[in-house]
Amino acid sequence: MKDKLLNIKREASKFSIISTQIKNNIIKDIAGLIDKKSKEILAENEKDIEKAKKNHLAEPLIDRLMLNKQRLNSIIDSLENILRLDDPVMKVDRGFTRPNGLKILKVRVPIGVICIIYESRPNVTIDAAALCIKSGNAVVLRGGKEAVNTNMAFVRIIKDALSCNNVSKEIVCYIDDPERRYIYDLLKAKNIIDLVIPRGGTSLISFVEENSLIPIVKHDKGVCHVYIDKFADILKATNIVYNAKVQRPSVCNAIESLLIHSDIDEDSVQKILQPLRNAGVELVGCELMNKIYGIEMAIEDDWYAEYLDLKVSIKIVKDVFEAIEHINRYGSHHSDSIITENYSNANAFVNNVDSAAVYVNASTRFTDGFEFGFGSEMGISTQKLHCRGPMGLEDLTTYKYIIYGNGQIRT
Amino acid sequence: MKDKLLNIKREASKFSIISTQIKNNIIKDIAGLIDKKSKEILAENEKDIEKAKKNHLAEPLIDRLMLNKQRLNSIIDSLENILRLDDPVMKVDRGFTRPNGLKILKVRVPIGVICIIYESRPNVTIDAAALCIKSGNAVVLRGGKEAVNTNMAFVRIIKDALSCNNVSKEIVCYIDDPERRYIYDLLKAKNIIDLVIPRGGTSLISFVEENSLIPIVKHDKGVCHVYIDKFADILKATNIVYNAKVQRPSVCNAIESLLIHSDIDEDSVQKILQPLRNAGVELVGCELMNKIYGIEMAIEDDWYAEYLDLKVSIKIVKDVFEAIEHINRYGSHHSDSIITENYSNANAFVNNVDSAAVYVNASTRFTDGFEFGFGSEMGISTQKLHCRGPMGLEDLTTYKYIIYGNGQIRT
Repeated sequence: MKDKLLNIKREASKFSIISTQIKNNIIKDIAGLIDKKSKEILAENEKDIEKAKKNHLAEPLIDRLMLNKQRLNSIIDSLENILRLDDPVMKVDRGFTRPNGLKILKVRVPIGVICIIYESRPNVTIDAAALCIKSGNAVVLRGGKEAVNTNMAFVRIIKDALSCNNVSKEIVCYIDDPERRYIYDLLKAKNIIDLVIPRGGTSLISFVEENSLIPIVKHDKGVCHVYIDKFADILKATNIVYNAKVQRPSVCNAIESLLIHSDIDEDSVQKILQPLRNAGVELVGCELMNKIYGIEMAIEDDWYAEYLDLKVSIKIVKDVFEAIEHINRYGSHHSDSIITENYSNANAFVNNVDSAAVYVNASTRFTDGFEFGFGSEMGISTQKLHCRGPMGLEDLTTYKYIIYGNGQIRT
Repeated sequence: MKDKLLNIKREASKFSIISTQIKNNIIKDIAGLIDKKSKEILAENEKDIEKAKKNHLAEPLIDRLMLNKQRLNSIIDSLENILRLDDPVMKVDRGFTRPNGLKILKVRVPIGVICIIYESRPNVTIDAAALCIKSGNAVVLRGGKEAVNTNMAFVRIIKDALSCNNVSKEIVCYIDDPERRYIYDLLKAKNIIDLVIPRGGTSLISFVEENSLIPIVKHDKGVCHVYIDKFADILKATNIVYNAKVQRPSVCNAIESLLIHSDIDEDSVQKILQPLRNAGVELVGCELMNKIYGIEMAIEDDWYAEYLDLKVSIKIVKDVFEAIEHINRYGSHHSDSIITENYSNANAFVNNVDSAAVYVNASTRFTDGFEFGFGSEMGISTQKLHCRGPMGLEDLTTYKYIIYGNGQIRT
């Protein structure tokens, strides 16, 4: 592995200044090869599926692993999306001339070598590699062992596409690490890898956080809330709560908790809860919810829980400030929404909720690179440093200052 | 300490939305109190100096520690500088409306709780606290034990200024940690502290890097270079090299290494070296430099060294690409300059040198928040993530997305 890393470091700096046209051609070729070699990819995927079944993996995990022609087409679509994005490299963020005549430009440049540590979904191999290529970065992929055959097939295609364009194959490398022997070394390779992006469950992310000497951008869990204010439009509230909980419960921007103002009448609350019950959502709640609406009592852990399933915890709060306090305490600073027609309460909410995305009268499900118009995303950052919320192509760059002088010295 | 940290966390969120006027009044009052209580501060500083002398601290360290009326005035000047800076909080970086009508704003907000771990210079206590206050952050200060009496005097003044403005005194806290008992706990307090900024020597920074669970922005060493190209204007080269090495050798943006193109004639090289020799600069160099100019041979370690002193290593290189390779290999990615009148070589240098600040025909000494026109700085970031180069007020903020809807749900 050490050789692979030294090679990638050396090649990364050459790749960082390559033209947009070549980068786009590589991505086009990856898409073309996925289409052309779809049978081969699906055959490799079949091996992973068989092994997963033999190892009695849970059904949803097998589903995540599984590719078919339709899923390959959506990977190709996603590549075409990345193709259309503007190249962020060498974009000038600011430029100014100082009184002494120095011309200072703040220019976007690739980060260098990015390491993505992810779990079973094999489409991440292509998405992550293509985003890194488009932004001029070399990439170390360390995928989950369940998807190894599929991942290797994808990596062969990426390397072929690089070769076709006379770019070193070494700028994309895959670490096959079934025994978790190399992950620790990757996290210590601070002179080679510039950024580690962990994507996966809490245990993976904690492991990376605790062991990395390299800066990380983590894509952690989403404990998202909708707060229904005293001044909510109940129809909007009903639709938004249903959408945020039921439309796709397994994703990080779905809600896990519902906060309801204590002045909302019972009829209105029932209007909001009924569609959830009809969709089979399991409800747990605070003492008042239990007493008035007969729903099961929640325990303390419920308020922290990311169910990723048809289950929601419900709490009655006395005002917007109790809602804010609850969200800041129990939430994961991901996405939270207030439903209100009241100007001051909306303001208090957006100013005080400490989350990546704070909504007024909209579903939390919009926290997403595509929905925000960024075209594509590496994930949703749940940290405050470097980038927060949807991590787009530009977030895979850093900057440098280029300073043009004509002999200036400091006095 | 745990209580202090819990308090600061609670108060930080209230402080994050406080008005610019109040923040400015606090900074004004700090400046006023430093002026008013200068005798008291200098008396406390005298205690630190006496202890330092008793412990036989090196003369430069004692000098760093020492305050006098003039140095207090420059601290007051620096506060007035911070006062004049625009408040970055609630600045809208981007704003756009999506086809579905969602209005998305990317808004700057304080990071939250920032921990500064620094060594002996007591002015950092005031500078760092004022920058954090202006950017709406709470701050945990963990200064060096040598300056404890001076630091505590400053912190009392800061707390008085907070009280005068009805702001909780808890948003600034000082950790007196002579035995290094608490530093480890600070680095693990990831649910309370949002960012750690280590400022100091390599051993402090490595310790923080290795033990922190919290994102860091490090202000590490500067191994900076000037490369004199074949097409250099020798007069510009002579002035810039002298300035970059001699004007203030103890700072991170001074150069440690000089690279000279092999085609430059002996007379010109002597013109460049003579002023250095006259200033008492110790020269070490590669084999060729040794053979032709009789200067002492450098060892491998010299090329990595941050002398911070009147000493420079000199290497003859065959072209701009060898210079780039040397700088990327041995440098610290801080500040590097090419002296050339050749357009293509200037381009190759700025595109390929992987440093925070890359210069053409100017001294590296300009890498500085004031010189860049940022008004004030927290230090020079030597990492690529979050911020790079001079860390200004805006770099002490993060952002959140505020999304205004009217009932939008995702389909």
